[in-house]
Parts: sequence; C-alpha cells; structure tokens
Amino acid sequence: MKTLIKGSTILTMGNEEPYIGDILIDGDRIADIQSIISTGADVIIHGGGMAAMPGLINAHQHTPMSLLRGFSDDLKLMDWLNQKMLPAEARMTPEDIYWGAKLAMAEMIKSGTTAFADMYIHMNEIAAAVEEAGMRASLTRGLTFLENDGGRRMSEALDLVRHWSGAAEGRITTMLGPHSPYTVPPQPFRELIELAEQEDIPLHTHLAETKEEVIQIREKYNQTPTEYLYHLGLFEQAHVLLAHSVHLNRRDIGYLKSMRGGVSHNPVSNLKLGCGIAPIKDMADQGITIGLGTDGAGSATTLDMFEEIRAATWLQKLDYGDPTKLPAMDALRMATAGSAQLLRIAHEVGTLEIGKKADIILIDMRKPHLQPIHNLHSLLAYCANGADVDTTIVNGKVLMQGRQLLTIDEDELLEQVSLRSKRIVEGI
Amino acid sequence: MKTLIKGSTILTMGNEEPYIGDILIDGDRIADIQSIISTGADVIIHGGGMAAMPGLINAHQHTPMSLLRGFSDDLKLMDWLNQKMLPAEARMTPEDIYWGAKLAMAEMIKSGTTAFADMYIHMNEIAAAVEEAGMRASLTRGLTFLENDGGRRMSEALDLVRHWSGAAEGRITTMLGPHSPYTVPPQPFRELIELAEQEDIPLHTHLAETKEEVIQIREKYNQTPTEYLYHLGLFEQAHVLLAHSVHLNRRDIGYLKSMRGGVSHNPVSNLKLGCGIAPIKDMADQGITIGLGTDGAGSATTLDMFEEIRAATWLQKLDYGDPTKLPAMDALRMATAGSAQLLRIAHEVGTLEIGKKADIILIDMRKPHLQPIHNLHSLLAYCANGADVDTTIVNGKVLMQGRQLLTIDEDELLEQVSLRSKRIVEGI
Repeated sequence: MKTLIKGSTILTMGNEEPYIGDILIDGDRIADIQSIISTGADVIIHGGGMAAMPGLINAHQHTPMSLLRGFSDDLKLMDWLNQKMLPAEARMTPEDIYWGAKLAMAEMIKSGTTAFADMYIHMNEIAAAVEEAGMRASLTRGLTFLENDGGRRMSEALDLVRHWSGAAEGRITTMLGPHSPYTVPPQPFRELIELAEQEDIPLHTHLAETKEEVIQIREKYNQTPTEYLYHLGLFEQAHVLLAHSVHLNRRDIGYLKSMRGGVSHNPVSNLKLGCGIAPIKDMADQGITIGLGTDGAGSATTLDMFEEIRAATWLQKLDYGDPTKLPAMDALRMATAGSAQLLRIAHEVGTLEIGKKADIILIDMRKPHLQPIHNLHSLLAYCANGADVDTTIVNGKVLMQGRQLLTIDEDELLEQVSLRSKRIVEGI
Repeated sequence: MKTLIKGSTILTMGNEEPYIGDILIDGDRIADIQSIISTGADVIIHGGGMAAMPGLINAHQHTPMSLLRGFSDDLKLMDWLNQKMLPAEARMTPEDIYWGAKLAMAEMIKSGTTAFADMYIHMNEIAAAVEEAGMRASLTRGLTFLENDGGRRMSEALDLVRHWSGAAEGRITTMLGPHSPYTVPPQPFRELIELAEQEDIPLHTHLAETKEEVIQIREKYNQTPTEYLYHLGLFEQAHVLLAHSVHLNRRDIGYLKSMRGGVSHNPVSNLKLGCGIAPIKDMADQGITIGLGTDGAGSATTLDMFEEIRAATWLQKLDYGDPTKLPAMDALRMATAGSAQLLRIAHEVGTLEIGKKADIILIDMRKPHLQPIHNLHSLLAYCANGADVDTTIVNGKVLMQGRQLLTIDEDELLEQVSLRSKRIVEGI
C-alpha cells in the first residue's frame, strides 16, 4: 500500500530549510522525500497549502484523566488531589479507563500528536485503546510502594511489559514506572533499576515537580530528589524518562549530564499548578535531551502540544528576560525529535527521513492567523494550534483526514464520555 | 430584523451560573434572554451544543502589523525594532495598512474577538476596514514627539477623533494616543491630557513595558514611568487605557488606584519579548480594572484572545506559586467586561444583558478537547481556542457563521496579504 503526499511544504526537522515537495509512504515507512515524486501510489493526498512535519510526541501523559478535565482547576495541589482526583479516580472502572484513554487519543490525533508516553493503571485497557486508535505509545504501569500491595502492582507492571511490548504492529512499547522519589523507597527503587538494566527496559518517573517534594525528600533522606535518584544509580545504565524536573539546582543538573533518555518538560501543567519554571535551557546546554509533554488533562486541561511548544519558549524567555532564548525551532525539535528520544523511538520517528516510520501531520496554513508566511517555524510554534492539523498519519496509516477521525467513532466516544464522567464525579 | 439564538449554554459573564436558553436580538441590541423564547424571528441560529458568551475584546492592538507576523521573532527588542520592524513599516503604503488591518480583523472575527483598541498610523484606512468588516473598535493615532513633525501627527490625531467618533453605526470610537513616557516629553503630554479632559476624549498609552524604559525614565526625570505620568496629572480626570504596565512597584500601583479606565495586560507579548510578569492580581486587588490584549501580531504573532486568557491565569499562578490565583472566570471577565471598561464601552458590551449591544460569540463544545463539561469556565479558559468559535456577532450582525466569514472575502484577503507582505520585507 503506497500513499503519496503531494506538494506540501516539508519541514523534516533536520537541518534543511522548509521546501515544497512530495512524500511517498510505502506500508508503514517513508519511502521517499523529493521535490517531485512521479511514482504511482494507491492513495494521493493533496498537500498544497499545508505544512508537513513529523507528528508531535507527548512525552508525559495520564490519558484516562481526560475524563476529569476541568473538574478541579484553580485548586491547591493537595486539595486537587485529595478532595477531587483521588475520590473520582477510585470510582473509575476498567471500562472508564478505556474510554478516558480513547478520549485523550481522539484529542491527540485531532491536534497532531502521533505518539505519547502514558503512566497509569489498568494498562491492558489503555493498550487495547491504543491498538484500536492506531497511535504509537510507550505504556507504563505507575508503581508506588507506600501501601502493602506493591507486589500486585509490580506483577501488573511486568505483565504489561511482557504482553504488550512490540504489540500493535510494533506501535506499543513499554517502560517500568517507579512513580517518584516521594512514593518509592530506596529498596524497591533499586530493584526496579536493576530489573530495568538486566532486561533493558526503560524507566519512566516523576522528578521534582514541586517545592514540597524537595522539602519532603530533604527531610527524609537529606538529599535533593535528583541526588536521591542519582545515588540509587538511576542515571548510570538505564534509559530514563524524567517528567517535570522543575526544581533542580546546578549540581542536580550536573548529575543528569550523562543520563540516557531525558527530561519531559510539561510547562502548561507546571504553570497551571503554580509549580515553577523548569531550567530546560540550562539542561539542554549541558547536553541533556528535552522533550515536551502535557501531563494528564486532569491538571493541564488541554492535550494540545502546540500550547506546550509556545509555553516552553515563553518560559525560557521570561526566565532569562531575553527573547532570543529557546527560539521557535528549538521548541519544535523538543516536541518531535526530543520526545522521540525520551520514548526511545528516535531511530524510528521524530524527523521526516527516508526509512523511518511514517508518523506525519499536515497543517493547513491557508488561514488568516497563519498568513503571511515569513517564517514557517514561527507560525507553527507561536500561531498554530491543534485545530489547524488537517491530517494525522501514524505508521503509514491515516488516522485523521480533513479533521475527520477514521479510527475512532467520535459520536459514540462523546456519548460514552458524557455518561461516564457524570457518574464518576457525582456528589464529589 | 430579529435573530433568535436557540438552545445554547449561556454564559452572561454576570453572576449567574451558565444555563441553557435562548437569546433574542432585535436590530443591534439584545432584546431578551430566557430559558425559552417563543417570539418569532427573521433568522434562527441553532445554538445546541454551543456556549454563548460576550464577544472577546482585545484591549491593545496594532492591527496592520499582522502583515509582519513571524517576520522577526526570537530577536532582542532593539534588533526587532531597528533591524526589522522600522525598515518594514517604512515601506508600508496606506493600502498595505488597510489590508494588514483587514487581515487582523479576519483573524479576530475567526477567533471570537468582536471589539478592539488599535493604535497605529494611517487611521483613515483602518477605520474604513473596520466599517467594512463590521467590528467594533476604538481607534487611536499613535503620537510621538521626538522628531519635528509632532504637529502633523497631532492634526491627524484630531482629524481621526473628529471624523470617525461614532461612525459605522456607532461601532467606531476614538482615543488620543500619546505613545509612551519615553517618546512624549512633559509639555506635549500635558497638552494632550488637557485636551482629553476638555473634550472628554479617552487616552491610550504604553506604560512600563520593559526594564529599559524604567531605567531610561529614571535617568531622564528621576521618576518611575508611572510617577512620570502621575505627576503630569494623567490619572486625575481623563479616562486612560494603559497598555502593558509590567514594571510597577507597590507605590506605582497606588498611583493608579483612583484612575478611570485601566490596564491592558498583554501576557503573550510580554512573555515572547521576555519583558516580565505584570502584577495584575495586585492591581486588581486595589480595584484597578484589568483588560486583556494581544499587542500587535508583529510581536505577539497571534491575535487569539483565548491564548491571552490562559497566559494571564498561568502567569499569576506562577508568580504567586499558587494555583488558586486568578481562576478561569476572573480571566474570562478580564477579556470581556474588563476590556470593555478600558475601551469605555462597558455600558454597551462586555456582558450578555437585555438592552446591551448584541456582540455575541458561539463556541462549539462538541469536540473531544472540550468534553466532558464538568466546568464550562475551565474549558473556555484552558482548552478552547479561536478555532472553536463557530459564530461571531457584532452589533446584531452575523460576521461569521459555521467558520465562514460573511463580511470579508478570505481568498482575496490572503492573496493581497501574500503579495504585499513579500514586497514589504524584500531584502530586509
């Protein structure tokens, strides 16, 4: 099956300037990129007036929380968690999880996200939703060890890794998910790191999201959260996806310098929860890979990665008092190639290159807010939003075209979401 | 001519919770708002699944700069100005100004903005564009007095006020525009204030956008920029629209306490230029009215007011380290009723009330990123963007329906914009 995208402005996210050309997809891979491709194809997509770029990759998500979008905004973190999120999440059935994940995927596909890293519970349901929706995902069973059922969670985590790694035509990969420095004590954390190293499984964890975490870990271990993870040996061998990393001092950043993997910056969530500005420019200057993520819609409210791209550049400009910091292209790279490295799929996606998997989005530029085109990077980073994405392709398969979802029944989805979300929050 | 909007979820921006109901427009005014209105009407608009709210009001703009959108992002302010903006603006003909303003209006109408405050040059062309596009606008000829032609500018400013105030069925109002503390010396500034008081014309000026301005005014007058304006008597009598007001200390805020008018907060522009965080929560706590604006697309890149709403709440949460600061509804109020006060049109627009002018937008909520609806305010502030606006009504007239512009030929506009913008920047 060959698909030919004709005449779009191609932004490979490599070093070339954008140029008008054709992209040939053969099966699940990019077979050719050229000014003009005259090969025949089974399907022709007319890309005139559109920008073609690698699909955006959301490096930190909790998909089912989309059912709780807007349910508890503008609250203190602990009120948000204890009075709203935990009671609501306790009512969520595996079927709710499935539909919540589907809702997140519908939003992601419609806003140009082709792959994501997810940490939650009931991962079988999420994996089933990924398989059906056609997205690419790195799935992680979140692991906390503060209560007694660490064992059950651990076996679910291993089941996920064993059953789902490489599933859905290779679109699903998995990680191990020690939740955070404040929910995983040294012993189980060390065991997870060892397991990750032995079996070459990447790890996904939260780090230093809030000042409170820094205080708590200082009281418990007389260390910063980053030092805590460093001394457990986390950054030595394993591939690690670190979410947030807001409160890192200069020495903390030094500990991350030689890490494999990198940091998922989630600026909208950090802003909305009043957490602070993660020092991603300082980290990037030390060679640490930065990707972008939204965090769950329960906190961030939106899963539109274009918002994260903008917010990422804004925060560095604000923090430095310097508009030249983190220019548009750097933020676009973080949302594509950067996030791909964090998910350990950069050899397959994150740039448009011959031989890579065909995860491509087309953005319709023929709109007043995206004209004139003096600088395509600027328009994509500062003006475009999810609604400008016309076509989303993952693994060579078209998941959305002309804003119509092709793998998810949107009417059925919104009906399920409405019924379930009402039941979940009733009386809370 | 009667128009009836049936069955939308009405957010009046008053104190009522959102409710499903009908809105009757008679001529240019809101004639009725009720759960069910059974009066006949010439036109029925089906609002089911949509939220109806007052049109957004952009309190600080330089519309023709839309032709330079993305032309000089990620640069130092002075490089942006001297190497890019000034040379490009010098090439703009009155006809370019007209098309640039039209481009801005097309974007504004398509993203739910119904009124705006504009400060630029060649205001006759902008006024003509406003008249045709059907928007509501407060127009100001920007006045600087650093060169010798202050006189010509002044006469243009007075011509604007005399010829255009109340024009276009009352949609156009005007202000006097002393540009800023650093471009208007005390003598002409004082004369403008006196003129404004005598003839009851509001004033529109920039204040304390950058740290450099604070330093410059300190060197020149041994005052803060706010003190400079205060001692000129600006806040005593005249209605003043102050753009930016980023660098204000506690005493400066005190000087503004009794002012008429208020502050246009432009968070996206402030972020993108690395200017800082305006203390709008502190100002609002002192009773100072805050509106929201985008600034020109030459700096902000986008004119989508939903971005400003989000960025405004984010920055206060960040600045205070507290997610409860500036909740969704407060920011929505700033973008509607707040901005209306700044434009001195709050008696006519800014809320949905019987007897007020019919400036109304309908936002289509039947989309994955706007579901489920736990909290409409949250969804509008944190998730919606301009593309979710289905219908834009100004002065009772539908300017956009089903995303189709009805007063602007979009194809002609984009063609003109493409040709003109290329000529303007060539070789710069």
